[in-house]
Amino acid sequence: MKIAVYPGSFDPITNGHLDVIERAAKLFEKVIVAVIHNPEKNPYFNFKERIAMIKAAVPHCKNVEIDSFDGLLVDYVRTKKARSIVRGLRAVSDFDYEFQMALTNRKMASEIETVFLMTDYKYSYLSSSFVKQIARRGGDISGLVPPAVAKRLMKAKGAK
Amino acid sequence: MKIAVYPGSFDPITNGHLDVIERAAKLFEKVIVAVIHNPEKNPYFNFKERIAMIKAAVPHCKNVEIDSFDGLLVDYVRTKKARSIVRGLRAVSDFDYEFQMALTNRKMASEIETVFLMTDYKYSYLSSSFVKQIARRGGDISGLVPPAVAKRLMKAKGAK
Amino acid sequence: MKIAVYPGSFDPITNGHLDVIERAAKLFEKVIVAVIHNPEKNPYFNFKERIAMIKAAVPHCKNVEIDSFDGLLVDYVRTKKARSIVRGLRAVSDFDYEFQMALTNRKMASEIETVFLMTDYKYSYLSSSFVKQIARRGGDISGLVPPAVAKRLMKAKGAK
Amino acid sequence: MKIAVYPGSFDPITNGHLDVIERAAKLFEKVIVAVIHNPEKNPYFNFKERIAMIKAAVPHCKNVEIDSFDGLLVDYVRTKKARSIVRGLRAVSDFDYEFQMALTNRKMASEIETVFLMTDYKYSYLSSSFVKQIARRGGDISGLVPPAVAKRLMKAKGAK
Amino acid sequence: MKIAVYPGSFDPITNGHLDVIERAAKLFEKVIVAVIHNPEKNPYFNFKERIAMIKAAVPHCKNVEIDSFDGLLVDYVRTKKARSIVRGLRAVSDFDYEFQMALTNRKMASEIETVFLMTDYKYSYLSSSFVKQIARRGGDISGLVPPAVAKRLMKAKGAK
Amino acid sequence: MKIAVYPGSFDPITNGHLDVIERAAKLFEKVIVAVIHNPEKNPYFNFKERIAMIKAAVPHCKNVEIDSFDGLLVDYVRTKKARSIVRGLRAVSDFDYEFQMALTNRKMASEIETVFLMTDYKYSYLSSSFVKQIARRGGDISGLVPPAVAKRLMKAKGAK
Repeated sequence: MKIAVYPGSFDPITNGHLDVIERAAKLFEKVIVAVIHNPEKNPYFNFKERIAMIKAAVPHCKNVEIDSFDGLLVDYVRTKKARSIVRGLRAVSDFDYEFQMALTNRKMASEIETVFLMTDYKYSYLSSSFVKQIARRGGDISGLVPPAVAKRLMKAKGAK
Repeated sequence: MKIAVYPGSFDPITNGHLDVIERAAKLFEKVIVAVIHNPEKNPYFNFKERIAMIKAAVPHCKNVEIDSFDGLLVDYVRTKKARSIVRGLRAVSDFDYEFQMALTNRKMASEIETVFLMTDYKYSYLSSSFVKQIARRGGDISGLVPPAVAKRLMKAKGAK
Repeated sequence: MKIAVYPGSFDPITNGHLDVIERAAKLFEKVIVAVIHNPEKNPYFNFKERIAMIKAAVPHCKNVEIDSFDGLLVDYVRTKKARSIVRGLRAVSDFDYEFQMALTNRKMASEIETVFLMTDYKYSYLSSSFVKQIARRGGDISGLVPPAVAKRLMKAKGAK
Repeated sequence: MKIAVYPGSFDPITNGHLDVIERAAKLFEKVIVAVIHNPEKNPYFNFKERIAMIKAAVPHCKNVEIDSFDGLLVDYVRTKKARSIVRGLRAVSDFDYEFQMALTNRKMASEIETVFLMTDYKYSYLSSSFVKQIARRGGDISGLVPPAVAKRLMKAKGAK
Repeated sequence: MKIAVYPGSFDPITNGHLDVIERAAKLFEKVIVAVIHNPEKNPYFNFKERIAMIKAAVPHCKNVEIDSFDGLLVDYVRTKKARSIVRGLRAVSDFDYEFQMALTNRKMASEIETVFLMTDYKYSYLSSSFVKQIARRGGDISGLVPPAVAKRLMKAKGAK
Repeated sequence: MKIAVYPGSFDPITNGHLDVIERAAKLFEKVIVAVIHNPEKNPYFNFKERIAMIKAAVPHCKNVEIDSFDGLLVDYVRTKKARSIVRGLRAVSDFDYEFQMALTNRKMASEIETVFLMTDYKYSYLSSSFVKQIARRGGDISGLVPPAVAKRLMKAKGAK
């Protein structure tokens, strides 16, 4: 259980994601936070911004790397010689989606195991889209996202 | 428990929404039906139409006001000196979304309580999007929505 | 919305129940915490103990009464001239049971409304049976239940 | 799709069960309502009473037979030369249990198909145990169960 | 129970759909696989392609017809003199959507029954959108879809 | 991530449990299968039998130990110097229970992480109680449990 990949859009990273990263960093020797490069999906923050915000948020975990990928997740995981995919489960969450993804990945790469960790219940209500919605309407998002994200979301709002 | 806000897109109001309004009107001294003004979301009926249809449907509740807001719901609730947000729960429903919204609102305004009322099971299958889908395909929607809405939906269909 | 009944077995009362009581006490003029007297169910604490523990926990809410009932809940609610039943919803919870109960009560007494409040997410994992299970196995339950309950649970454990 | 078996404890039969039987009777040439004989489970009504109450409730469906079985459901279904098992799904329901049962039966007898029908939403809150609980506490159960069941439940209550 | 309609977008047909078709074909005298013609929804494969792929996949079921419809499903079902709508339920699935649709259809046409069949657990994770997502990212989709679909998806990918 | 504890009643061990053990054994340096000693719960197989059946089933995993505990799980985990609790998630499963347990354990021992692994979908319908129910009614349980368990279940049935 040396290396694990924690994939996501991170559009933007929230304190819930950070919580999962910190938990995974204690379990695995190395955790690779892997930002999905899906230009078709029209993200709120572009690829570079999303990576920059993660970098600003996780300097305190020594065994955490930040990377990105396009193509198939399991291919990326194999490239990295990782054997585990980390996913956070929230008490308020969409199991169906997580299970579909985990079962599909297992079907394509049976040697890779999806490991589910439970987010702190403090963050059980948090999602990137909720954070963006609150910011768009002028709500206070400090406490929901790392400081660098809060700053950018506020700036983005001003610009739009 | 004087004033409660019942927020929604109401695109359009259904008999399920009406049922919740009537239940809330018995519990609270004043219920404000507050239409969310979200131009980005590209609603089927424009803002004025949605308000007009609610007005046509609820003249019989004396302690019900119809209003609208943009920005953050909790800010609006505070402006109205209300302390409660009303939401309908359907037996067939998306708790996850409701819980995320309620928990997020509580995080931002702990003095405001979300109060969930249960829709009549007759309406447990009803949603604005289902009604629009049925109307678009030529189905009979009387019994699902107030008469004024049925009329407009039929007209809208003809025009499109 | 003068009077509400908050029914339950309270075997024993937890901090989650207390949280609901405090929220309800802000919404209603009077909240009656009503302990169900169901001798057939073989509770852990007897009827008097359960009431005593609630009394020890809620002296700070002036508009909260503690009472008990047997027979049908809706009959009791009518006797008390209340119009609302309060129930707590936890993010981790059994909606099905709550919905069955609420729909059955509505069927029997359509003038009585069940009002669902959301427990603080801090208590989303709490239930009386979990608390008893932890106490039985020697776990620390302070923080999960009011002090008087913690004391009795520890004593009960010693005696058994 | 000649013959279908509708298995259950029917302790006692409710109007929700009846609704499923009537729906199934329109779909299949013959529907066998099959009461599970599980003496270990300590039912409220004994085996004969449960069958008698079903018989009193369904004389109006000509292609409905009432029978009983012990042992394995799929063995019974084979004996009856049936190919389908009917189960009712309620909007408020335990899918997990139904799915476990259906998947287990398929594992043991792949030629037998479980067919799920949706109960009328009027009965979505109904279950045998709720009915018994209401009757025990003196509630009005007419409208929830067939008349013969209501009569017996009232009598049983008086006797106990 | 002569004729059943199995409606869907089938964009594209998966092995999970095929599994449901085969199960339905054993239960009913005739099964009509009915492709929804919804030009507004911007499907991945056009109408003709979707029908062609179904035709290539189901030649082995003699009592299966392939057809299409626009307008209201229940109107189409009536036209075909069918009395049943078939839907597959997956262990990993969206009951809410299925229930809304089934209850809405029943409201509009009470004589038509929705019959739910359980997909083989092998396909519990499968959906058309997952298959497209995997293909788009270069994953191996043989085993998830009929051969003709796999071929087209690969070709479509190359073209785009 | 050296040592993990996989706790359970294992009354009896099923092929689903075995699947989780094998997955965990690949992730962790050592996996301790820990049988809960709860005499109050009146298990079907006694404590020794349950342990013997696990031992017979897992000789092929070199880094798997079989042990037992009473008292609090987190205390036991600490004694073993483990930092992880392993739990299997089934597509057909009770998340609520798992989440309550995981959150309660985290509350009591924040340094211990619960790691959820997904059972093979082949076993998504399997549970110890289902296996016992099938065996009791004379069904074929080979394929659901390890051979030693099947033998004992058959013998137990004969004796009872």
